[in-house]
Amino acid sequence: MTTSSGSSGSDDVKTPAPAAKDPWDLPDVSGLVVGVLGGTGPQGKGLAYRLAKAGQQVIIGSRAADRAQAAAAELGLDVQGFDNSETARRSDIVIVAVPWDGHAKTLQSLREELAGKLVIDCVNPLGFDKKGAYALKPEEGSAAEQAATLLPDSRVTAAFHHLSAVTLMDKDVDEIDTDVLVLGEVRADTDLVQALAGRIPGMRGVFGGRLRNAHQVESLVANLISVNRRYKAHAGLRVTDI
Amino acid sequence: MTTSSGSSGSDDVKTPAPAAKDPWDLPDVSGLVVGVLGGTGPQGKGLAYRLAKAGQQVIIGSRAADRAQAAAAELGLDVQGFDNSETARRSDIVIVAVPWDGHAKTLQSLREELAGKLVIDCVNPLGFDKKGAYALKPEEGSAAEQAATLLPDSRVTAAFHHLSAVTLMDKDVDEIDTDVLVLGEVRADTDLVQALAGRIPGMRGVFGGRLRNAHQVESLVANLISVNRRYKAHAGLRVTDI
Repeated sequence: MTTSSGSSGSDDVKTPAPAAKDPWDLPDVSGLVVGVLGGTGPQGKGLAYRLAKAGQQVIIGSRAADRAQAAAAELGLDVQGFDNSETARRSDIVIVAVPWDGHAKTLQSLREELAGKLVIDCVNPLGFDKKGAYALKPEEGSAAEQAATLLPDSRVTAAFHHLSAVTLMDKDVDEIDTDVLVLGEVRADTDLVQALAGRIPGMRGVFGGRLRNAHQVESLVANLISVNRRYKAHAGLRVTDI
Repeated sequence: MTTSSGSSGSDDVKTPAPAAKDPWDLPDVSGLVVGVLGGTGPQGKGLAYRLAKAGQQVIIGSRAADRAQAAAAELGLDVQGFDNSETARRSDIVIVAVPWDGHAKTLQSLREELAGKLVIDCVNPLGFDKKGAYALKPEEGSAAEQAATLLPDSRVTAAFHHLSAVTLMDKDVDEIDTDVLVLGEVRADTDLVQALAGRIPGMRGVFGGRLRNAHQVESLVANLISVNRRYKAHAGLRVTDI
């Protein structure tokens, strides 16, 4: 069983020993500026709100600077608003929360501004029809891999896929009861993203593999939409035994 | 936003109101016989053990009846062992836990025996290389959709993907701390599978959508393998807010 697991579950694979470093020993990210491209959309704005509330310096980016400024003013908490390009330039960490339709075009246009930056893609490519939501498969494998292809000079990770925008924006909710799966190729980068997720009360950043395994994490939102419909909920995910 | 969700999260889609039925009102499955094809493998045997321990009548199936009988004798708990064909014939519910390599061939050969039966596919099509596990994409979309294609006269569902075989077989573990996402087209069938999952202490069956959204659920095991490696764990999943 070296090329195919079948039904062998998730734990019986022979692999090299994990690195000795404590996976919960994460860096301090409190001084880093976080920009949110597409920060006027529900998920982007919700994330901006929660990060700013946690004390992070946050910039909302949008195609139009005035819309970004209006969203920032609405949130308060010293959030600033700029166009996407200026947001990318001023940020240390850039969350990509644009609609999938505009994903490639937006990132192509920001290649220079995003060079050297830590990019967190949280876009879920989904289609909808009468039967509900379903996964779209980007040519590159996933939205995150598309970002990595279009931004060869950036440090691309993927995270924050499974959040409820409604819950994020609900001022009566103090803790976000969910883990955030963080994917990426470089541990120093995924550690930073995990630390950022951990700034939000209730939230925990959990390493979830390489970018080639991003598609299923992005697509799982289709299943959570089914959960939400059936149970009238705003479902999140927790990883057990860690 | 009718054909693509972008980054809008999992909760802002306009859909018809859910059915009024309480999603936790599930049928009694305690009298149903459960067969496990591939029940001599780690995941299949672990599931057989937990279901039998919960009081379910369980049959282990294998290509060779003697191997099935040996595994059944090992488990005790009145578990029986037969070849796959006889197992399918004697069971009300049939769990498919064979290796992905043999999935299509096994199901093709059992089409008649599985006609009318409730089939639960729990196979995870994965590949492995030096970088770890990655998703394989079956031509039909997923292992579950392959099963539905090959078994047109069966009631095919998908569930039990994210279980740790090690934890299932660990006699010191009394409760399995995980939710089981259950996918399928017919609510009466997914309700039965949810009820079956709920027989195992700690486990909860949660409706997770249609079969066309099975691929990401199957593939997510690749991410859980990364989690297990990083955190030296046997990770499971919980859905929050339900």
